[in-house]
Amino acid sequence: MAGSIFGKHFCISTWGESHGKAIGVVVDGCPAGLPLAEEDIQAYLDRRRPGQSRYTTSRQEADRAEILSGTFDGKTTGTPISMVVYNTSQRSGDYSEIASYYRPGHADYTFDQKYGFRDYRGGGRSSGRETIGRVAAGAVAAKILKELGMELCTYTCAIGDVRIDREHFSREEIGKNPFFMPDSEAAERAARYVQACMEAQDSCGGLVECVITGVPAGLGEPCFDKLDARLAGAVMSIGAVKGVEIGDGFGAAGARGSSNNDAFVSREGVIGKETNHAGGTLGGISDGSGIIVRAAIKPTPSIAARQRTVNKEGENIEISIHGRHDPVIVPRAVVVVEAMAALTMADALLEGMSAKMEHVRKIWGM
Amino acid sequence: MAGSIFGKHFCISTWGESHGKAIGVVVDGCPAGLPLAEEDIQAYLDRRRPGQSRYTTSRQEADRAEILSGTFDGKTTGTPISMVVYNTSQRSGDYSEIASYYRPGHADYTFDQKYGFRDYRGGGRSSGRETIGRVAAGAVAAKILKELGMELCTYTCAIGDVRIDREHFSREEIGKNPFFMPDSEAAERAARYVQACMEAQDSCGGLVECVITGVPAGLGEPCFDKLDARLAGAVMSIGAVKGVEIGDGFGAAGARGSSNNDAFVSREGVIGKETNHAGGTLGGISDGSGIIVRAAIKPTPSIAARQRTVNKEGENIEISIHGRHDPVIVPRAVVVVEAMAALTMADALLEGMSAKMEHVRKIWGM
Amino acid sequence: MAGSIFGKHFCISTWGESHGKAIGVVVDGCPAGLPLAEEDIQAYLDRRRPGQSRYTTSRQEADRAEILSGTFDGKTTGTPISMVVYNTSQRSGDYSEIASYYRPGHADYTFDQKYGFRDYRGGGRSSGRETIGRVAAGAVAAKILKELGMELCTYTCAIGDVRIDREHFSREEIGKNPFFMPDSEAAERAARYVQACMEAQDSCGGLVECVITGVPAGLGEPCFDKLDARLAGAVMSIGAVKGVEIGDGFGAAGARGSSNNDAFVSREGVIGKETNHAGGTLGGISDGSGIIVRAAIKPTPSIAARQRTVNKEGENIEISIHGRHDPVIVPRAVVVVEAMAALTMADALLEGMSAKMEHVRKIWGM
Amino acid sequence: MAGSIFGKHFCISTWGESHGKAIGVVVDGCPAGLPLAEEDIQAYLDRRRPGQSRYTTSRQEADRAEILSGTFDGKTTGTPISMVVYNTSQRSGDYSEIASYYRPGHADYTFDQKYGFRDYRGGGRSSGRETIGRVAAGAVAAKILKELGMELCTYTCAIGDVRIDREHFSREEIGKNPFFMPDSEAAERAARYVQACMEAQDSCGGLVECVITGVPAGLGEPCFDKLDARLAGAVMSIGAVKGVEIGDGFGAAGARGSSNNDAFVSREGVIGKETNHAGGTLGGISDGSGIIVRAAIKPTPSIAARQRTVNKEGENIEISIHGRHDPVIVPRAVVVVEAMAALTMADALLEGMSAKMEHVRKIWGM
Repeated sequence: MAGSIFGKHFCISTWGESHGKAIGVVVDGCPAGLPLAEEDIQAYLDRRRPGQSRYTTSRQEADRAEILSGTFDGKTTGTPISMVVYNTSQRSGDYSEIASYYRPGHADYTFDQKYGFRDYRGGGRSSGRETIGRVAAGAVAAKILKELGMELCTYTCAIGDVRIDREHFSREEIGKNPFFMPDSEAAERAARYVQACMEAQDSCGGLVECVITGVPAGLGEPCFDKLDARLAGAVMSIGAVKGVEIGDGFGAAGARGSSNNDAFVSREGVIGKETNHAGGTLGGISDGSGIIVRAAIKPTPSIAARQRTVNKEGENIEISIHGRHDPVIVPRAVVVVEAMAALTMADALLEGMSAKMEHVRKIWGM
Repeated sequence: MAGSIFGKHFCISTWGESHGKAIGVVVDGCPAGLPLAEEDIQAYLDRRRPGQSRYTTSRQEADRAEILSGTFDGKTTGTPISMVVYNTSQRSGDYSEIASYYRPGHADYTFDQKYGFRDYRGGGRSSGRETIGRVAAGAVAAKILKELGMELCTYTCAIGDVRIDREHFSREEIGKNPFFMPDSEAAERAARYVQACMEAQDSCGGLVECVITGVPAGLGEPCFDKLDARLAGAVMSIGAVKGVEIGDGFGAAGARGSSNNDAFVSREGVIGKETNHAGGTLGGISDGSGIIVRAAIKPTPSIAARQRTVNKEGENIEISIHGRHDPVIVPRAVVVVEAMAALTMADALLEGMSAKMEHVRKIWGM
Repeated sequence: MAGSIFGKHFCISTWGESHGKAIGVVVDGCPAGLPLAEEDIQAYLDRRRPGQSRYTTSRQEADRAEILSGTFDGKTTGTPISMVVYNTSQRSGDYSEIASYYRPGHADYTFDQKYGFRDYRGGGRSSGRETIGRVAAGAVAAKILKELGMELCTYTCAIGDVRIDREHFSREEIGKNPFFMPDSEAAERAARYVQACMEAQDSCGGLVECVITGVPAGLGEPCFDKLDARLAGAVMSIGAVKGVEIGDGFGAAGARGSSNNDAFVSREGVIGKETNHAGGTLGGISDGSGIIVRAAIKPTPSIAARQRTVNKEGENIEISIHGRHDPVIVPRAVVVVEAMAALTMADALLEGMSAKMEHVRKIWGM
Repeated sequence: MAGSIFGKHFCISTWGESHGKAIGVVVDGCPAGLPLAEEDIQAYLDRRRPGQSRYTTSRQEADRAEILSGTFDGKTTGTPISMVVYNTSQRSGDYSEIASYYRPGHADYTFDQKYGFRDYRGGGRSSGRETIGRVAAGAVAAKILKELGMELCTYTCAIGDVRIDREHFSREEIGKNPFFMPDSEAAERAARYVQACMEAQDSCGGLVECVITGVPAGLGEPCFDKLDARLAGAVMSIGAVKGVEIGDGFGAAGARGSSNNDAFVSREGVIGKETNHAGGTLGGISDGSGIIVRAAIKPTPSIAARQRTVNKEGENIEISIHGRHDPVIVPRAVVVVEAMAALTMADALLEGMSAKMEHVRKIWGM
């Protein structure tokens, strides 16, 4: 396979280019009996829709999800769930020039090197629209987690150099500002920051954080498939992500053992941790605390400012990229990070079912 | 599978506990005709051996690698390569107390939660000795890369808050100090920093960087199996790693598009990049620049200072961990990061062979 | 994953139920640069279309394939190829009764046991329509094989107890009779045999044979992924197949070594075999002779004759199944066997590219 | 990977050549808490040991299994189980001549074609000794099945043209004759048949049947990973197997629907089948009846009679193969077929645990 398949048990296969006929995903391995409707998918897709504020592209993408298989009488049947979103608002004309040169920060050059040629319309398979399949499948995964009492909370914690103040954290605030920040004051500063970027024909990046609560202890595998390793691979596979950390992450590299270790504590017979520097995993296995994963997202590479590059003839040229591009991709990446986290968790959940004979007997014992 | 298998094409299966009879790895998918001897493996294993300085554990681990299958007349045959290292210097008595409580920062609690019980001797499968299999297999992968003109250079770039000065970078220096730092002056400061930690019965972490040069453009898959995603998952699967970044990584989150984009430039017909903020990948595919990956490593959790925790009866207790523990694991992690990077690259190399019909015809065309 | 994914390198993910909205497949791992059009797919789908003779169901299924992604300018791009066939002629009313009881020879009972409930309309995921995805993907695989000089020839060699006479084998005849038999006289006897079955409200089975020529020596892996093992698994995964053999197959069990061994012979420097009892593989690896695989297909389980069974209340009842069912599924299975063989060969081709360093250097060497 | 890995959940990785240092297997994914000792493994290995009668090779192979990891206090820990058998009685001198020519019916030629050269000592990776890893891992799988009330019964049902009489089937008889036949009278005829082959410097093949009882309904996946498809692939991957069938198998191809369908019947509220032509699966999912799988095994290719072949210089030559070869491999294949069946069932068991949300809630629900 060439890498468009993710997950070992809750396994998804995404497909589609930005300017092809459609984009979609097939989910293989979803347990039977999960209530699932197109509205569940749509609610997630709507969170990545552009055109919701002046800080995202003005393109209108309706992006209606349709379930083509795998459900019956409102429930999953255990067979593959195929979901499709038809591309309706793509204008191929917008992108004709791109065919002739390599945009800096984009995959144009590397696609040509890998495949010998490329679908140059709007980034093709490397377009941000590729994430539609991830988000649709992530909505199914999130529904499983929710049924089991888990919850994902994902938000922007930095835009450029504007960071949220943890003291002002408000979960309710997340949906109220265009950046999905849990701090209204930071969101206002972020707006000014992005505005300045736009005026300078430039773009910016930021940080997205996902916290998963209600996770039972014991999820994840001890060696290569550590829960944090899987989360890192999943989140880093999102187009613009350049770094991933768990818990204190890079901060832990500068800490001392005495302050970085989380003490265990027993409260009325229930074992927990006093702190959560580890971000919810020990030895790659969930410890019952919240899972905390953070992603660094690079500035949008499409900018109107002039840039040097090379055309297909190998000549040095200067370009400036116009069109309806997001000055910052971070707000739209929030739901994509959440989707990848949900997919990873659902996969670990199903994988972990056979970790002990006691579980095997519970299901198959006669 | 339960996660001790890594890679899709160059596929390794590791096994072994710190205090079991042996530790090893099976490599399936290594191409036939690669010159390979036990010395190739040993050279890598020696780099992770403890007891080489006062800043690592004083345990003596001989760790002799033996190749049991897959080679003939000094070359790989295409069949699985099984490698084993017998555990000779483990003293089970050292660890008896651990059975009764959960060490903070270790996997004791999570193993018990996942499996119902655990091999409590020296961390069992979650011991640092688990990395022996990774390193032995990584040596084989590195040999393939070397045959194709690629080179891995891995070193420590921070110990606690002591960072190398990029201006003083010296590749020759790496092997000359106990921290594998490419800056002798920083290594001296690191020595003082670690000494202070030891005196405080404490431990510290740091950063490891791996740079891979000579990589052809076109490696990596466009969606979930991006080269950077695979590297992130691979490196994060190492026990103590809490964060991974590619190129500028978290720095990119605070940058602007105009400064973060790497301009393409053509020099005498060869296309390259003027800078390498991206760390060698665009859209998840190698761009011909050096691949740069950085790992954040947490402080050793085993410390002599008193810590609060819980025993198996659920009682709150205080412990202090004695024994021969590394005050900082970073120097020994250097070769492990390199091994995981080599394994990831070898896997991507083999996977990428079928990316275009032109290649398929070159091999099978008649 | 739950088993709707096939192949490791040329990897397909099928989806869809007989009475859902659509049926389809995603192909991940097809090399870039393969000329591919919807007509290539349609030509294969047309071969499994019913209603082409009085010996297959009179249902009309248009089954138009649409390519939704993965091609550009008439060639594959290396990204996933999504293909869909909308279900247009399914009449749900036909099947309402099925919900209440378990048809003998069908998957009704086992689906209920596995998933707790089922999509009872027309067999759901276990309908013969599930093979549409296999055939569409198989058409792509066959195109790759053809580009490399390989050819698949698939036909019926028995219907009930009517067998072809190998002396009368005529390749041209295959497309000229409703049973796809390479022997016109046998086809006439088969027609009479099936007619008799129909008059007795009964059904029959038969044998399908696939011969693949032009296969280079060296395809297939030596242990679990032997070429013949993969072919056997692939062909046995087709709904009605109950047995698979390679070369002389079950006949070899009764033979002696001296007659079963194929002597090697060198003719003008080219090594070949004098006979082909082995069916083209030795030690699971192709030997350059034609690959011969044969499948035993059971009689259609839906028959009008009365049968005893059990309803969902657990009561013993008698049923007789009416509707437009194939009296013999063998003719329509011919292209499905060919598709599975093509998919298996394409997968082995891509996998085998990295078998030796000489090949790796040929692609990546600098 | 190059095909020495089998299973998705209960996943094994085998390694080793006939004349290398050792042969072994790593099992990843075995649930924790299964009682397991070296004797469990040895009991299986002893069943494939040669030299037990005049009808198998006179080579003495002690084949002592050693468990190197994955157990603690007599139980599996959930981590990889590594098992090794050192090669002690191989005489390399026996095989020196083989290097220069291609033995008919062996993998010599195809290995050379695939890899460019081969370990020519005793068949290397394609030796029958390769099955040691399968059998050792199969013993672990069988232990899981046994814990859940399943039982495997495997025996020879034909040697050459000598078939057992089903009327005389005696389970106790299986272990009492050198052919593992469940019919003493057939075993006596088989002895005479093999004796005649030996006198003619020839060899013969036969049929092995495996019946698995106590299997819960609902195992297996509906599409490519049908239980019968997996069994077919698993059994066909054994070196000398040329055909596989389930239930009536090839017999079903000649039957009619009315006689081939198994009627469902309810007895005191328990649903069962009146007959078992299907061999225990419907739609690829176990139906609660016994699973019946049958393998056709070719005659041993190493025979003393003269054969024509080609040497590495491409010259036509005549050879006759001497040494200690089995005149019939069937008796020693019995336990290998059983091992592959057990591995397949264990894998399906673990995979099937997540088929419905009801199961997922039972394990993870809070």
